[in-house]
Amino acid sequence: MAELSAESGIPVATIKYYLREGLLPAGERTSPNQARYGEEHVRRLKLIRALVEVGGLSVATVREVVAAVDSDRAAYNVLGVMQGALTRSAVDVSDADREWAMGLLGPIARAHGWKFGPDNPAVEFLVGTVCTIRSLGHQALLDQIGRYAEVADRIAVADLDTIDAIGSMDRIVEAAVVGTVLGDRLFEGLRRLAQAAETARRYSEG
Amino acid sequence: MAELSAESGIPVATIKYYLREGLLPAGERTSPNQARYGEEHVRRLKLIRALVEVGGLSVATVREVVAAVDSDRAAYNVLGVMQGALTRSAVDVSDADREWAMGLLGPIARAHGWKFGPDNPAVEFLVGTVCTIRSLGHQALLDQIGRYAEVADRIAVADLDTIDAIGSMDRIVEAAVVGTVLGDRLFEGLRRLAQAAETARRYSEG
Repeated sequence: MAELSAESGIPVATIKYYLREGLLPAGERTSPNQARYGEEHVRRLKLIRALVEVGGLSVATVREVVAAVDSDRAAYNVLGVMQGALTRSAVDVSDADREWAMGLLGPIARAHGWKFGPDNPAVEFLVGTVCTIRSLGHQALLDQIGRYAEVADRIAVADLDTIDAIGSMDRIVEAAVVGTVLGDRLFEGLRRLAQAAETARRYSEG
Repeated sequence: MAELSAESGIPVATIKYYLREGLLPAGERTSPNQARYGEEHVRRLKLIRALVEVGGLSVATVREVVAAVDSDRAAYNVLGVMQGALTRSAVDVSDADREWAMGLLGPIARAHGWKFGPDNPAVEFLVGTVCTIRSLGHQALLDQIGRYAEVADRIAVADLDTIDAIGSMDRIVEAAVVGTVLGDRLFEGLRRLAQAAETARRYSEG
């Protein structure tokens, strides 16, 4: 385990925690207090740390995500798991609020050809988010949802181009996970820089 | 406090926690064990809960954000605080990795007219994120960064239109906070739906 720590740059205590939480498979036991870890362990460790520390996912969510990566389900089914990874918070929404939210989201989904079944986690997440924005009285943000949706479509095309570029089949699922979770963070950071520039353009000049 | 809880729909225990953590200002004391809370307390409570439970911000970050909202700094300075709110994780990056990351981000920033000083938190966040993506071996995602940046510019224009639409000056700062934090979540959810649709378009049909 000391070697695994040195190889991955991750402290032994953190590795033990990931093992205990079932995120990392146990090594091959070679003696009562020694185990062998391979290249795959180093790779998996780096992925877990990236999802927790950079991606901001909870340990419970990462457990679910790595289980999906390890299962033999097709790449496009893993997207369902990634959608589940959004449900950080369960916001209670009244029936009336849900109806209002679906009245906002439904036409946008139809216009963009987005189809979803009942209990789709991304839709649940969006229902909670738009209801929260409304309860705070920020209608102006909701008025922009069409432009957000347009941009989401453009990013999704870039995302699938990324997936297409992956040659090896067993790397595709991992690429979908990394692209989705770290892609969210990448976009957040770029959005902040773009906002600062647009703010300066409108308010600081002339 | 029981009334404040009924009015806001937030449990008394949660309200006490927010008071203890300094997120919510104390009410006006009317007797040794009674305090008066006003409309502003209800409003602030809802904002705090939205940032924590839907926005996914830590209590420490929310404390910083509400302090910025309460200060009299101009709306565009609050964006600096919102950039700080990104630094969920401090990823250690070597000098060589930082140089590589800036070689990737610098030309994009210049092409989009994004200017930033040293130690800009959004840049630090992006440096950590792109280095993590590279260390996981997902170059294909980094190849799309130009398209992500283009889309970030479009969203920033929508974001500033939202801000411009707010009539009242003292709501502008709050609108910037809500738009940035809940806007991230809104975009994440829409991106998932768009990805699922684009995946179906490419892999499930024909």
